Amino acid sequence: MQVGMIGLGRMGANLARRLTKDGHTCVAYDVNRVAVEALAGPGIQSADSLDDFIAKLTQPRVIWVMVPAAVTGKTVSDLATLLAPDDIIIDGGNSYYRDDQMRAKELKTRGIHYVDCGTSGGVFGLERGYCLMIGGEDSTVHYLEPIFKSIAPGVAAASRTSGRNDTPGPEEHGYLHCGSNGAGHFVKMVHNGIEYGLMAAYAEGLNILKHADVGLHSRTQDAETTPLRDPEAYQYQIDIAKVAEVWRRGSVISSWLLDLTATALAGDSELKQFSGHVSDSGEGRWTTLAAIDEGVPAPVISAALFGRFESQGEADYADRILSAMRKQFGGHDEKQKDVK
Amino acid sequence: MQVGMIGLGRMGANLARRLTKDGHTCVAYDVNRVAVEALAGPGIQSADSLDDFIAKLTQPRVIWVMVPAAVTGKTVSDLATLLAPDDIIIDGGNSYYRDDQMRAKELKTRGIHYVDCGTSGGVFGLERGYCLMIGGEDSTVHYLEPIFKSIAPGVAAASRTSGRNDTPGPEEHGYLHCGSNGAGHFVKMVHNGIEYGLMAAYAEGLNILKHADVGLHSRTQDAETTPLRDPEAYQYQIDIAKVAEVWRRGSVISSWLLDLTATALAGDSELKQFSGHVSDSGEGRWTTLAAIDEGVPAPVISAALFGRFESQGEADYADRILSAMRKQFGGHDEKQKDVK
Amino acid sequence: MQVGMIGLGRMGANLARRLTKDGHTCVAYDVNRVAVEALAGPGIQSADSLDDFIAKLTQPRVIWVMVPAAVTGKTVSDLATLLAPDDIIIDGGNSYYRDDQMRAKELKTRGIHYVDCGTSGGVFGLERGYCLMIGGEDSTVHYLEPIFKSIAPGVAAASRTSGRNDTPGPEEHGYLHCGSNGAGHFVKMVHNGIEYGLMAAYAEGLNILKHADVGLHSRTQDAETTPLRDPEAYQYQIDIAKVAEVWRRGSVISSWLLDLTATALAGDSELKQFSGHVSDSGEGRWTTLAAIDEGVPAPVISAALFGRFESQGEADYADRILSAMRKQFGGHDEKQKDVK
Amino acid sequence: MQVGMIGLGRMGANLARRLTKDGHTCVAYDVNRVAVEALAGPGIQSADSLDDFIAKLTQPRVIWVMVPAAVTGKTVSDLATLLAPDDIIIDGGNSYYRDDQMRAKELKTRGIHYVDCGTSGGVFGLERGYCLMIGGEDSTVHYLEPIFKSIAPGVAAASRTSGRNDTPGPEEHGYLHCGSNGAGHFVKMVHNGIEYGLMAAYAEGLNILKHADVGLHSRTQDAETTPLRDPEAYQYQIDIAKVAEVWRRGSVISSWLLDLTATALAGDSELKQFSGHVSDSGEGRWTTLAAIDEGVPAPVISAALFGRFESQGEADYADRILSAMRKQFGGHDEKQKDVK
Repeated sequence: MQVGMIGLGRMGANLARRLTKDGHTCVAYDVNRVAVEALAGPGIQSADSLDDFIAKLTQPRVIWVMVPAAVTGKTVSDLATLLAPDDIIIDGGNSYYRDDQMRAKELKTRGIHYVDCGTSGGVFGLERGYCLMIGGEDSTVHYLEPIFKSIAPGVAAASRTSGRNDTPGPEEHGYLHCGSNGAGHFVKMVHNGIEYGLMAAYAEGLNILKHADVGLHSRTQDAETTPLRDPEAYQYQIDIAKVAEVWRRGSVISSWLLDLTATALAGDSELKQFSGHVSDSGEGRWTTLAAIDEGVPAPVISAALFGRFESQGEADYADRILSAMRKQFGGHDEKQKDVK
Repeated sequence: MQVGMIGLGRMGANLARRLTKDGHTCVAYDVNRVAVEALAGPGIQSADSLDDFIAKLTQPRVIWVMVPAAVTGKTVSDLATLLAPDDIIIDGGNSYYRDDQMRAKELKTRGIHYVDCGTSGGVFGLERGYCLMIGGEDSTVHYLEPIFKSIAPGVAAASRTSGRNDTPGPEEHGYLHCGSNGAGHFVKMVHNGIEYGLMAAYAEGLNILKHADVGLHSRTQDAETTPLRDPEAYQYQIDIAKVAEVWRRGSVISSWLLDLTATALAGDSELKQFSGHVSDSGEGRWTTLAAIDEGVPAPVISAALFGRFESQGEADYADRILSAMRKQFGGHDEKQKDVK
Repeated sequence: MQVGMIGLGRMGANLARRLTKDGHTCVAYDVNRVAVEALAGPGIQSADSLDDFIAKLTQPRVIWVMVPAAVTGKTVSDLATLLAPDDIIIDGGNSYYRDDQMRAKELKTRGIHYVDCGTSGGVFGLERGYCLMIGGEDSTVHYLEPIFKSIAPGVAAASRTSGRNDTPGPEEHGYLHCGSNGAGHFVKMVHNGIEYGLMAAYAEGLNILKHADVGLHSRTQDAETTPLRDPEAYQYQIDIAKVAEVWRRGSVISSWLLDLTATALAGDSELKQFSGHVSDSGEGRWTTLAAIDEGVPAPVISAALFGRFESQGEADYADRILSAMRKQFGGHDEKQKDVK
Repeated sequence: MQVGMIGLGRMGANLARRLTKDGHTCVAYDVNRVAVEALAGPGIQSADSLDDFIAKLTQPRVIWVMVPAAVTGKTVSDLATLLAPDDIIIDGGNSYYRDDQMRAKELKTRGIHYVDCGTSGGVFGLERGYCLMIGGEDSTVHYLEPIFKSIAPGVAAASRTSGRNDTPGPEEHGYLHCGSNGAGHFVKMVHNGIEYGLMAAYAEGLNILKHADVGLHSRTQDAETTPLRDPEAYQYQIDIAKVAEVWRRGSVISSWLLDLTATALAGDSELKQFSGHVSDSGEGRWTTLAAIDEGVPAPVISAALFGRFESQGEADYADRILSAMRKQFGGHDEKQKDVK
């Protein structure tokens, strides 16, 4: 199948490469001319402009949009004016599912089909394949199955789930039609929300191991510092990098995120190159918003999200209020923050 | 009644003053000679040494220990060697209730009675009276009631609870015999745990109000910053000091802690004199430990506690792990922490 | 000033009564005819219909809408068609501040002024006065000050904040113009969010006290029940009603919510009339949404919110997944839920 | 090497089998005679009594204790009286690391060596191998390496961590000497704490997906039920079992726990056989206690722990207090809990 790829960052370029490996052809476009030229080659035709891109695609056109979330809306609108009925736009980025619902409705008035496709796999997807969570009309999604199948990791990527004996369904290939428009990004959003929780669980646990030596350090003795009751119980100097490694084999908590953590720690167990400012990128927020709208509890995912906000300094004013209250009722002078 | 007061910090000195106001007499002792002299006066006799202190007290002696938690153990042990059977030691500090259980048992072998008395009221107690949460044997606590009554705020300090029509019980005077040894400090511990939760609730809420203007600020536009979807919904510049004040009258959330917050903000609504390093002092930790031992959930109190740990920089390594993971799976370069 | 009051439930009726006590006059209307008749009397004129209500009000009309959140939108729209330029609508309910922004804009096209007024005080407001958080144009809010002043508790309702020496501002009377439209309900929303946190802090703490007797109960001894390591440390049978009462005087955590808790417990310390299904009513959700949009942490308020969702049974499927996982990896058979 | 195995439950029996597969021999004992006979066979000698067990072991004896945590203490004490200097006891269960510290000290006085060995792998360990986290003296742990190596999964069980190029260390075989006595169980404890967090993250996320259809259901319209603002945004009926499956390939959140979740859901996506009473078994509690002692935040792990307590009905009294408060300040009648 011929696919037009707009947005040739790490993800878009690798998706195009993975498609051509499996016999599909691509027309590639990006506002960054260098990215276009870097990608062009066997099976991948370059486009000079959006018009050129559109012209080089056979109708009904299949266009995969893989641009930053902030410009997805404009890219889709611009495309819409150039496309013909029955053309298909796939949004492979991390759009908010409510935007999908709206965009699909608008495009439908022009006869254009819209598919939202949450795409997970990060920098390893070219080799591993990408997990695809898809929303859209049945017929359109069905039509696109050959390209989803090529992008997904395939059945062999994991051992088969016990209890599954039939012909493997799409979900066992690594792609899933989750429902109508928005459903793909909804499932991807929650996927990322879970990711926040998993990451935080590992980080907390490793931090507890890191501080298993608190009994070895002398503590400031002042009214503003809680003494450690049992210093002899906290005298372990644990090699965090080795612990992350040992858990990779045979333990209940082995996972791909743990593999990555072990990689990061293998090189630098103190991680001094990082300052601890943890960005968040939308999906964790939206997952929590969805939980609240639905009225279901999300204490773990939200705690992970709020931990990131705190790392960004956003608890600052709240903390100053707490210090001010303590000063008021107890006369406590604030201990100065350590300069790190 | 004659009371020996050891530890003449803010709390101890004010307790002695409040006792003498109500006709009791005190013998006062502190390792800090200046504190002793500052307090001596009508009704308050000074002691030069622990021996002098013991000698000036009539048997059975009633000794109120009001020293920092870190030295309570030693103070009580030292006293024990000097006291006679039937003497009474009251620990008015913030001891861990398990230490009370142990100390009471040890002192009992010498015939000395021990009472743990959680004392709340902070710097305002001299005027307002102190709320007393008491643990110990019935007979000893009963014997001490005259001094508890003098220290407590008294029935008139609050309007009467609807449904209470009998003669006001001790709890309506502001003191309560909560149970056997340790029960007083157990209740005080939970009191402080609740205090952590209340403080955090106000601080969070005011922080949300403070940031109601995020739509007015231009945001960095990069892949590591989540864009604000509805900037027009966040254009309020709210006067936090005035909000804290308005809530003091008629609102459901009026409280003494809110009164103090309003005082702090009245002078300096930006609170720039504080850095946001929020100390914790044992009781919040112990309350959470008790919840865990009991198997009951404490999500709010623990969140408040963990927020303090975060303000102390203790999430630092966990946050660096999160940034390292993000770099591994998504190639995200960490945004540098703002220097404040 | 003459005020038209629509919605004569507990809140609306008491607001009308409080206004007339202070010399204002009211025209009262409700779809429930009985409520209208119950309220009519000196200073309060009844209206038979919306048309009658409009006719009885002198221009520029001042109309206070105090209806359930679900029907506020329709009530305001219906009114809009009947009003004249310069008339004023005050929404005193718990509307979402974004609806205020939208409604104010729509009404402005007809020359009608809109004021959002978050009103706190509950069933005690008639006597205590109501705390008012107001959003709208300066001139309109200024024009309405006489009625806000009558409804608010007044300066004497609380002791003066130390550091405030000038002529008391509106916030010291108990009403505050917080900003442009929506600002009043925004501040009220956060007020209620804080309320969620405060309530949960007390409830958690009292629950910990309630279970201070776990060491007295024999525990099931099976692989699915964690044994209590130190049963002797948890042998207190604490009188929860008395503890709530004693904290009302002199303690750091005294508050109006605590007063109410003491009242509830005075009658029935086991609270067996309640099943523990805790409703939530919008503001807690919206406060958390605002925190997330602003990117500021709200671990305490969100924990309180999620605790309510859990009490409503909404963690049910998540919990079944956890039991299913435990069965898979550890062969653990699920312990059956106690029937209560 | 010859190993004595006490406790022939699922874990102990499989450990013995795995050891004999790799050429070691075992003497097996359990109070349950049936379990002993079921296991005896080539390489596994049965013992009739503790005395018989001791007699059949060559000195220095190596004894692996794999009994329920509740009886580990007694088992170790009983053994101690029968053993000779230089014998070794390995505790492979889930003991609290502080008990290890104490037991090691006691056994040392008799010249007996003690090793704590956290063992992860669950019901799949026989085939997959077990991840071993070990605490004890260097020389003893070194002496036992042959048996740890046989029990662990081995290097081939996972792809090699990028950046590791030397001869694989023990941690790459799946066992790690973490430090002195207690360190093994400390690391295993935190491992399980992380497991709590991971499990909760998946369960929360899947619960959010499950409720993505709330817009399709009509809601009770009453003052105690928050209306859903955007029902059209929540109309997805997502196949949870398929989502769990699709995430297993190529996604960032693939893990062994996800594999198990997919297995559980493949058979029964509604999980109606479970009631949602989620047990906890010590390690999650201890991990949180350690975090608090160390003064490091653990919001995610503690939220997971408290979620389990809630599922056990332990928030019950707290929830009744909240309903009672709402009744007091707002006159809200409690909605009855749904009977499920």
